[in-house]
Amino acid sequence: MRLSRYFLPVLKETPSEAQIVSHRLMLRAGMIKQASAGIYSWLPLGYKVLRNIEQIVHEEQIRAGHIPMLMPTLQSADLWRESGRYDDYGQEMLRITDRHGRDMLYGPTNEELITDIFRSHVGSYKDLPLTLYHIQWKFRDEIRPRFGVMRGREFLMKDGYNFDLTKEDALHAYNRHLVSYLRTYERMGLQAIPMRADSGPIGGDDTHEFLVLAETGESEVFYDAQITDLKFGDRAIDYDDKAQCQAVLEEFTSRYARTDETHDEAEFAKVPEERRRTARGIEVGQIFYFGTKYSDAMGATVADSEGNKVPVHMGSHGIGVSRLLGAIIEASHDDNGIIWPEGVTPFHCGIVNLKQGDAEADAACDALHASLTALGLEPLYDDRNERAGGKFATMDLIGLPWRITVGPRGLKNGVVELTSRRTGESEELPPEQAIAKVAAIYGKAVA
Amino acid sequence: MRLSRYFLPVLKETPSEAQIVSHRLMLRAGMIKQASAGIYSWLPLGYKVLRNIEQIVHEEQIRAGHIPMLMPTLQSADLWRESGRYDDYGQEMLRITDRHGRDMLYGPTNEELITDIFRSHVGSYKDLPLTLYHIQWKFRDEIRPRFGVMRGREFLMKDGYNFDLTKEDALHAYNRHLVSYLRTYERMGLQAIPMRADSGPIGGDDTHEFLVLAETGESEVFYDAQITDLKFGDRAIDYDDKAQCQAVLEEFTSRYARTDETHDEAEFAKVPEERRRTARGIEVGQIFYFGTKYSDAMGATVADSEGNKVPVHMGSHGIGVSRLLGAIIEASHDDNGIIWPEGVTPFHCGIVNLKQGDAEADAACDALHASLTALGLEPLYDDRNERAGGKFATMDLIGLPWRITVGPRGLKNGVVELTSRRTGESEELPPEQAIAKVAAIYGKAVA
Repeated sequence: MRLSRYFLPVLKETPSEAQIVSHRLMLRAGMIKQASAGIYSWLPLGYKVLRNIEQIVHEEQIRAGHIPMLMPTLQSADLWRESGRYDDYGQEMLRITDRHGRDMLYGPTNEELITDIFRSHVGSYKDLPLTLYHIQWKFRDEIRPRFGVMRGREFLMKDGYNFDLTKEDALHAYNRHLVSYLRTYERMGLQAIPMRADSGPIGGDDTHEFLVLAETGESEVFYDAQITDLKFGDRAIDYDDKAQCQAVLEEFTSRYARTDETHDEAEFAKVPEERRRTARGIEVGQIFYFGTKYSDAMGATVADSEGNKVPVHMGSHGIGVSRLLGAIIEASHDDNGIIWPEGVTPFHCGIVNLKQGDAEADAACDALHASLTALGLEPLYDDRNERAGGKFATMDLIGLPWRITVGPRGLKNGVVELTSRRTGESEELPPEQAIAKVAAIYGKAVA
Repeated sequence: MRLSRYFLPVLKETPSEAQIVSHRLMLRAGMIKQASAGIYSWLPLGYKVLRNIEQIVHEEQIRAGHIPMLMPTLQSADLWRESGRYDDYGQEMLRITDRHGRDMLYGPTNEELITDIFRSHVGSYKDLPLTLYHIQWKFRDEIRPRFGVMRGREFLMKDGYNFDLTKEDALHAYNRHLVSYLRTYERMGLQAIPMRADSGPIGGDDTHEFLVLAETGESEVFYDAQITDLKFGDRAIDYDDKAQCQAVLEEFTSRYARTDETHDEAEFAKVPEERRRTARGIEVGQIFYFGTKYSDAMGATVADSEGNKVPVHMGSHGIGVSRLLGAIIEASHDDNGIIWPEGVTPFHCGIVNLKQGDAEADAACDALHASLTALGLEPLYDDRNERAGGKFATMDLIGLPWRITVGPRGLKNGVVELTSRRTGESEELPPEQAIAKVAAIYGKAVA
C-alpha cells in the first residue's frame, strides 16, 4: 500500500480527552475516531489490526474444534425473561422498543439465544459434545465509557458456548478453552495470565479471567512471580485429550494468581515472599463453567443413552476482541508510539523513501514494494513528499515492527537500512537481503 | 469437516412460515434460525456462505482501490439532524434512547457518519480521490419483515462512499463501482443486471440498481434480451483508467433495462419486439452519485489547488451481503435443494460413505478427506451411521456442487463416484483422479 493512496489521518496533537496511553495512541495513529460516547469508528489502520486479531481468534477456536456461527446483535426480551436476566441486568442493558412496541435489547452476551438454538435443534446425547461460538458486536450501556476501546459501549467480543452431557465433559470443554486462549494470546504477542475470578452476572462457580499486566490495568492483581516464566509455546496439543488439557490447566493455574475481587491474603502469604508480586492487569478474556443454570431455566435437555431427558452442562467463554487492541498497545509501546507484535501488525513493514522524486530512490522503493507484495507480505510505502523526520515519526507512531529506509546515499553503496521498531537497531544490507530477512521473520519463503 | 462433529440441523419438514424457496431451503438446510421477527441467527453452514460472500466483496473492493474500515452499528441522532434525515426517515429507522436519555439510532446506512469522519480529517484536494467502505450490520424496522434474509430487519450490507474534487472524478468513482460490482456478482455465479433506478431516501440523480432475474423477485423488470448475453468475464481492467471504466458502463447500460419504478413504455417500445422481455428481479446492490447533497448540508469541504474551499462530490454504493444468500438460492436450486455456485459454496465437496463401519470404505473416506484438506480444500464428510438415501438427500439439500461417493463395491474395482450437483452426472474413477478433478475445478494445484 502506498501511503499517498491510503487514509491514515495521524494527529499532531495529543487529544485531551484520552486518559490512557492506548487511547491516546489509537487516536493519534488514526486508528479510531469516536462516533459518540463509547462508540468508535475503526479507521483503516485500526480496522486492519482488528481483523488480524479476529483472524487469530477464529483460527485458534477452529483448531480447538469449536464451530463458528453468528448470532444477531438485537435480541427479543422474551428469552431474557425466561432466564430471569431481563430484570436482573440493570441499566447496562440497552433496551429498545421496535415500531410494533415489542421489547428488544442489544445483546450484551448470548447465553439465552444460544440455549434457545440448542434446545430447538438438539435432542440426543449423540450430538454432544458441541461448542459453538461467534464474534459479534455487543453493547453495554456503561454509565461512564472511557479509556477508548478498553471500556467502550459497542465492542467486539468472541463468545463461545459448550454443551455437554456431563459435568466432566463440560470441565474438559472449560480446560480446552483455557488451553486455546493461552495459544491465542501468545500469538498476539501477549502474556495473559489466567486468574481465579468472580462470575458476576453470568453465574457459575468455575471461572478464570485472563489478565495482561500493564500499569494502566483496571484491576489490582496478586501473583506468584513464577507464573510469568510459563510459556505455552508451540507445543503440540490434542484438544480431544482430556488428560493433556487438564495438565495444561494445572500447570498454568496451580500457582497463586488472583485479582482483587478474589484475592485471599492468607493464601497469598503462603507464596515465598521473594516471589510475591502486586501489579495491575487488563482483563482480555474469561471462561466460565456454570453447569445447568441456563439449561434448567430454559428447558435445554437431551436424551441420555437410557432415554432419560437430562439438562445439558454448559459454559461460556469470552475474548474481548476490540479491547485487545488497547491491551496490546498498553503492553507494547514507547514514547514515540505503538510497537506492534508481528502477529497482529497492520502492515508487515514500512518503506521510507528519504528522497521522494529521486529516480533511483523511487525505483528502489517500487521494487521493494513489489517484491514484498509478491511474497504475500503487505508493506506500507511512505511515498509522500515529506521530510525524512516526519516520515520516521509517522512510522514510529503507527508502530510497524520493521522499517526499510531507502536513500540515494545508501543506494550508491548498494544498501538500504533495516530497522527494528522494538530495539531501534539498524543494519545496512542489500535490498534483496532486507527482503529475505523480513520474509523470514514472517515465515514466508523466498523463491 | 466430519458431519458427526459439525452442527447441521437439517429439517425434515418444510417450515410453514416460509413463502419463498430460498427461505424454505435456508431453514431446511440448517443455515439460519429466526431469532425474532426479521432477525436471524446464522447457523454454521449459513455463516460459512455469508463469510465467503463477504470475502469476495472485500477482495473486489480492494482490487478497485477502495479502502476498508468499519463504522459502528449505533449512531448519534445529532448527525442525522444535521443532514435533515432524522425526521425524514420515518418508522423504518430504529430509534433508541440510551441510559442518559440521548437519542441514538441503529444505522440503516452511513452517509452522515462517513461525511463526519471525512470533514474531521481531510482538508485538501491532495488527499482525493478517496473511497472508503465497510461491511457492517444495518437495521431497518420493516413493518412486515418476510422472505427470510431477503427482507429481514437486521441485515449485512457493504456500503462504500467516494469523495472527489469534481463531478467528473465522482462519476469515475461511480463507474469504477459499477465495474467492480459486475466482477463481484459474476464471481458468486450470478448475473446481476444494472438497471436505471430511483434514488429514494439516499438522494441524487445518477443511480443504478443491480438485479438478479428470479421468479420470486420483488420488482417487475423490463429489458432488452441482448443484455443477458453480456459477460464481464476475466477481462483485465485498470480501475484508474477513466475511459476504460466508462466504456464498461456504456457496454452494460446502453440497452434498455429498468424496474417498474423507472419503466418508460415509449422507450421500451423502441426495443425490437422479439428482444423485449418482462420478468421479475431481486435487487442485490445499488450505486448512487449524489453530488454535494451531504457535503453541503454537513460542511464537508476541501481546499482546491487555488486554496478555495469547495464541497466534495460524493456517492454511495451498496451491496446486500446477507440478502445475496437468498438471491443466489432463488437463482440456483432444484426440487431437491440448493445448488451452490463454486465461488460461494460452504464446502468444496461432499464425501458420502455408503457403508460406515466398513474398514475399507472408512479408510478410503479418511484418505480422501485428508488429501483434499492438504490441498487447501474443505470437504464435508458424512460419516454418520445413516442409510445412503438419507446421506444423498442431505447432500442434495445443502447443495455442495460436487459429491464423492465411496462404497465397498466401487472400491473393489478401485473406483469412487464423482457427481455434479448441478447436472446430476456421475463418473466412476480412481480416488486420486477424483481428487485431481475437484482440485482443478477450484484452481488448486496437485503436487
